[in-house]
Amino acid sequence: MIDFNQISAEQFTERILQGDVVYLARAITLLESLQKEHQQKAGIILQNCLPHSGNSIRVGITGVPGVGKSTFIEHLGKIIITEGKKLAVLTVDPSSKKNKGSILGDKTRMENLAKEKHVFIRPSPAGDTLGGVTNATRESIILLEATGYNVIFVETVGVGQSETAVYNMTDIFILLMLAGAGDELQGIKRGIMEMADIICINKADGGNIEKANHAKRDLKRAIHLFSASESGWNCIVETCSASHNINLEIIWEHVLAYEAHTKKNKYFSEKRKQQLLSWFREALQNNFMQVISANKQLQEKIIETEKLIFDNTIIPSVAAKNIVIDDLFNK
Amino acid sequence: MIDFNQISAEQFTERILQGDVVYLARAITLLESLQKEHQQKAGIILQNCLPHSGNSIRVGITGVPGVGKSTFIEHLGKIIITEGKKLAVLTVDPSSKKNKGSILGDKTRMENLAKEKHVFIRPSPAGDTLGGVTNATRESIILLEATGYNVIFVETVGVGQSETAVYNMTDIFILLMLAGAGDELQGIKRGIMEMADIICINKADGGNIEKANHAKRDLKRAIHLFSASESGWNCIVETCSASHNINLEIIWEHVLAYEAHTKKNKYFSEKRKQQLLSWFREALQNNFMQVISANKQLQEKIIETEKLIFDNTIIPSVAAKNIVIDDLFNK
Repeated sequence: MIDFNQISAEQFTERILQGDVVYLARAITLLESLQKEHQQKAGIILQNCLPHSGNSIRVGITGVPGVGKSTFIEHLGKIIITEGKKLAVLTVDPSSKKNKGSILGDKTRMENLAKEKHVFIRPSPAGDTLGGVTNATRESIILLEATGYNVIFVETVGVGQSETAVYNMTDIFILLMLAGAGDELQGIKRGIMEMADIICINKADGGNIEKANHAKRDLKRAIHLFSASESGWNCIVETCSASHNINLEIIWEHVLAYEAHTKKNKYFSEKRKQQLLSWFREALQNNFMQVISANKQLQEKIIETEKLIFDNTIIPSVAAKNIVIDDLFNK
Repeated sequence: MIDFNQISAEQFTERILQGDVVYLARAITLLESLQKEHQQKAGIILQNCLPHSGNSIRVGITGVPGVGKSTFIEHLGKIIITEGKKLAVLTVDPSSKKNKGSILGDKTRMENLAKEKHVFIRPSPAGDTLGGVTNATRESIILLEATGYNVIFVETVGVGQSETAVYNMTDIFILLMLAGAGDELQGIKRGIMEMADIICINKADGGNIEKANHAKRDLKRAIHLFSASESGWNCIVETCSASHNINLEIIWEHVLAYEAHTKKNKYFSEKRKQQLLSWFREALQNNFMQVISANKQLQEKIIETEKLIFDNTIIPSVAAKNIVIDDLFNK
């Protein structure tokens, strides 16, 4: 057994750059930790790994529960490692709690993929705030890239605001959908469809094929109404069956085509730069909210203020000014 | 000439509640002011007016430049005041500067409406940040309602993030569009269409009618793919011609139907409560960012840090933690 408390940040970095997954996993645990000394060590490791990061394609994958995300990732993942690439799979799920055994859960549901040598699967970090979960996932990506993973899947659970968070940390965004009982599509959350670079209508097999093709036609027509994306890429709509391994190679080709397209027109690097900047802005605000949360007196005042706001007896802006300017900074 | 500096917050409130537009306009100027004493006085006026606010329908209106928003508002506004209602028109434009004469501009472009007794038109507050502009507009709504305006239009300029801001402060969201040269629709910004409760395809007159009807059909089909909105309201698509006064009565009826529908299922009040809560959260963060901006040393450090982030030599989260936790709060 290694006593990781005795391992310096420099030793961590060295091992990670050699591709050591044990040290990688442990370093991710450090950056997820709430302990100050863990966070400091993680900060140094991250800083050391940064120059060795960036060399991957980061793929966001979303879709409502039941759409078949795990099977899709498992079978698409096989194609990717067959090409000689190293694949990491992360999940963003602000509702997950480590003690509910989600680590086991994640590895179980992608059983075959998890056994592969060049695959690293890590469940969502635990956390009560989406900001915290998002931040840990962004930092994990840096460590994964430094370890040599060149395809990174970031899966969302398809509920709440997690899609936007994943969209903001990935290069390409894949939306999985299902053809419904009629000709409608199931589970398009408002605003998500327009973020997608590739839409896959899953479970297009057996008696479902016709419905899926119909849905594909409708969807293409709808997308045609949207103005062009900044990337200059027109959203692709494709049917597939993850469980029957139908069309997954084609979908992977679309991902590579998107990568080539956006690298050629420089959108790829431009988007990453913008993502870094918004990460910084968000992190400033998240740290501030953490300072507030850590201050018990202030936190109580905020809860009390929220009640008054709900009762329509205090103006939100006036209350916020009092708390931040007067109470917190005594100005 | 009244010397408004001599007028107390209580006198302001009294006059506003009597429906005095001169005092109303001056109070809005106070809340837009950057001077501390103005803001304090505005805070008291707002607080006093709060119990008398809320009794209106707040209508967000968006669409790209050239879609005909001013003409639409002018002619729809006439219908509303004919019903005996009092109408206020606000604009959210983070790029506007008062010294560019936008006050004159706004009144000129809605010349006939501006002459009406029961109409109050106010251009966008000046401001460099969307947060600041948004906040002033939200506060203005409270004063307008206390003065007796029961229909409030909040128009966005249709660029940047202003649509989301306006969506978050209104009860119903109207999107104006144009049928394009072919069968496509012009100027749908990604993500906006899905926020709309009513979509109006404008300039449906003369030779444009057929194209507009075609666009309406396509759009209805596309919208049918979206999952239902939380409001339980299905987005209405309607053609109209603001300049020829075609279909505007029908659109106003849709607005009233939406109001009745969402008041019946309680979505109306629920949405307003949620908006108050997010206003508070945003205001906390905006005040914090203002504290940072006011600190010259810190501001310089942030600019410097952003450069390092762009050069990929520093991790955004680590940098943010250093600034907020170590520099700002010395913890």
